[in-house]
Amino acid sequence: MNKQLILSKRPIGMPEADTWTLQTNPIPEAKDGEILIKTHYVSLDPAMRGWMNDAKSYIPPVQIGEVMRAGNIGEVVKSNHPKFEVGDIVTGWGGVQQYVATDGKGFYKVDTKLAPMPTYIGTLGMPGMTAYFGILEVGKIKEGDTVLISGAAGAVGGIAGQIAKIKGCRVIGIAGGPEKCRHLVEDLGFDGAIDYKNENIYAGIKQHCPKGIDVYFDNVGGEILDAALARLRMHARIVICGAISQYNNTGAINGPKNYLSLLVNRATMQGMVVMDYAPKYKEAAQNMGMWMMEGKLKSREDIYEGIENFYETFQRLFTGEKKGKLVLKVIE
Amino acid sequence: MNKQLILSKRPIGMPEADTWTLQTNPIPEAKDGEILIKTHYVSLDPAMRGWMNDAKSYIPPVQIGEVMRAGNIGEVVKSNHPKFEVGDIVTGWGGVQQYVATDGKGFYKVDTKLAPMPTYIGTLGMPGMTAYFGILEVGKIKEGDTVLISGAAGAVGGIAGQIAKIKGCRVIGIAGGPEKCRHLVEDLGFDGAIDYKNENIYAGIKQHCPKGIDVYFDNVGGEILDAALARLRMHARIVICGAISQYNNTGAINGPKNYLSLLVNRATMQGMVVMDYAPKYKEAAQNMGMWMMEGKLKSREDIYEGIENFYETFQRLFTGEKKGKLVLKVIE
Repeated sequence: MNKQLILSKRPIGMPEADTWTLQTNPIPEAKDGEILIKTHYVSLDPAMRGWMNDAKSYIPPVQIGEVMRAGNIGEVVKSNHPKFEVGDIVTGWGGVQQYVATDGKGFYKVDTKLAPMPTYIGTLGMPGMTAYFGILEVGKIKEGDTVLISGAAGAVGGIAGQIAKIKGCRVIGIAGGPEKCRHLVEDLGFDGAIDYKNENIYAGIKQHCPKGIDVYFDNVGGEILDAALARLRMHARIVICGAISQYNNTGAINGPKNYLSLLVNRATMQGMVVMDYAPKYKEAAQNMGMWMMEGKLKSREDIYEGIENFYETFQRLFTGEKKGKLVLKVIE
Repeated sequence: MNKQLILSKRPIGMPEADTWTLQTNPIPEAKDGEILIKTHYVSLDPAMRGWMNDAKSYIPPVQIGEVMRAGNIGEVVKSNHPKFEVGDIVTGWGGVQQYVATDGKGFYKVDTKLAPMPTYIGTLGMPGMTAYFGILEVGKIKEGDTVLISGAAGAVGGIAGQIAKIKGCRVIGIAGGPEKCRHLVEDLGFDGAIDYKNENIYAGIKQHCPKGIDVYFDNVGGEILDAALARLRMHARIVICGAISQYNNTGAINGPKNYLSLLVNRATMQGMVVMDYAPKYKEAAQNMGMWMMEGKLKSREDIYEGIENFYETFQRLFTGEKKGKLVLKVIE
C-alpha cells in the first residue's frame, strides 16, 4: 500500500496536525512511458509553508485534497520508460508519499556511490542549489567581502556561508542558541556567529561586522533583516531567499522599516527562486561535490523516520529544533 | 548685506517656522582663488528634510548654526579665480543665502542662452539628473516596459516619466489631485494617471497596469510602494529614489510589507543617490537639452519669491501645493 500525506485544509498561521491527513491507498501503476518510484527520503523545507497558501506566488499552491508537495528521493521499482531502469535512484518533486508513478519529467538520476541519498535532497539538492546561486549569482560575493547570513545553521544558510568562505569572504552567521553558533564557527569555519535568542542582534552585528556588511543573505526577514539593513556598506547586496520569521503570521508581514538604507548606501535587495537556475544545476552539483570531496564543504542532514511523524518533524522547521537539513525517511 | 537662512534647531516631524532663523550679515569677501556669487534662485527639494536629521546618511547632516544646504544658481560678481569671470552664471551647492564666497569646487558654469536659470536647478540640475540616471541606469528601462512613477507631478517624477516615454515605455503616473493627473496625461504625455488622493491606489494600479509593472520609480514610499510591490512583473526593478511620505514621521518609518514580492517575482529594489553620477552629468545634460529643444521633454518650474518666504515655500514640498520643480527666487 501507499501512504500519502494529503493537504486537508489551508492553515492560518502555524499549521496544525489536522492541516494534513494521512491516507493509505493502493500503490499506483506505472503506465506506458512511466516509472514507479519507491520513496526513501522526503525533503522538509520552510518554503512548503508558502505553497499551502491560496495566493499567487512563484509556484501554484498545493490544492486541498492533493498530495503535499515536497522534493524527495527514491528508487525506481518499475520502469516503462526508456531512460530509466529498475534500481535507478532518482530525485524530483515526488511529494510526501511512499510511492509515485510519473512520466519522469523533472526527475534526475543520481549516483549514490558519490554521496548518500539524503545529501541529494540537501547539499546537492534544492537547498544546496539555492545557497549556491543565491550567494554567487545574486549576492555576487567577492574575495574580502563581509558576508552576513541569517538562518545560518539551516540547510541553505550553512551551505551559503561555507561557499562564501571558500570564495575568500569573511562570514558571520546568525543562528538560535549557543550550540548552533558553536557549530557554525567550529564545524563550518564561519568567522563569527550571533545568537539571536540570547544576544542583541544590532549589537552583535556591530561587533562582528565593524566595517559593515557587503552581502546579506536573508532567510528570515523581520527584525533581523532590519538590523542588517542598518549596517550596510556602500553598494551592498541583500539576497532575499526567504522570510521564515514571517511565514506563519496571521496578519500582514513586517516590512523592513530600515529599507531606506538601500538609498543611503546605493544598495540592492533582490529576490530569488532556485528553479530559475535549473539549466545550471549540474555545474553547481559538480562544484559542490568537488568541494565536499576536498573537505571544504560539509553536509549535515537531520533525519527523522516515518511518514506518520511528518507533522511533528515539519514543526521543527519553525521551532529551529533541528541540525542542518531536515529529512524524513518514509520507506518502511 | 547678505541674508542667510541658518538651521537653528533639529526638527522632529514636520519642520516648523523656528527650525530656521534668517540672519542678515555682511557680504563675504572673495579671497585669493575664490569667487563671490550673487544667488538668483535656490532649489527646494524633499531631500533637504533628510539633511536636517542628525543621522549617518549619504551626506553629512547640516549642523545647527550653519547655512541651510541647497542647490542654487547665481552670477559671479567678483572673481579671484582663474576659471571664472564676473558675469558667469554658475550653479552648485550654494545654500539658502543671497551671496556665497567659494573656491568654486562643485560649481559649474551654465549657458543661459540655452535655458533659463531655474531650468538649470530643475530639469538640467539635480532633479533632472536624478530622474535621468534613476530611470535609465537603475531602472534599466527597455522599450515596451510598463513604468509606474510616484510623485509623478514632482520635479523628479515628471522628468523620469517623460524620459521613459521617449524610450518607448508605457508610463503611468501617480499624483495627488485631478489637476496634477490631467497635467501628466495632457501636458507630459503619460499614458495614464492615478489620483492617490481620490482613488484606491491598488485598484488604480490594477486598472492601469493590467499586466503588471516592469519598473517602479519610487519617490514616496509608504502605502504606494506596497501597492506597487503587489503588482510587479517578473524581473521587475524598483528604483528607490525617495520616500517623501515618510520623511516627517516622528517614529519608525513604514517598511514595505509586500517586499516578499521581490522573491516571488525575482525582482530588484535598488537605492540611488544622484551624486554618484557626477562624471556623467554633462552627457545627461546634453541629451536632456536636446530632448527639450525637440519638444519631447517639458520643464516646469514653480517659482516663489523672497528668502523671507523660505518656510512657507518649503512646506509646499510636503503639502504638494506646487507644480513641478519648486524654486525660490532670492535676489532683491
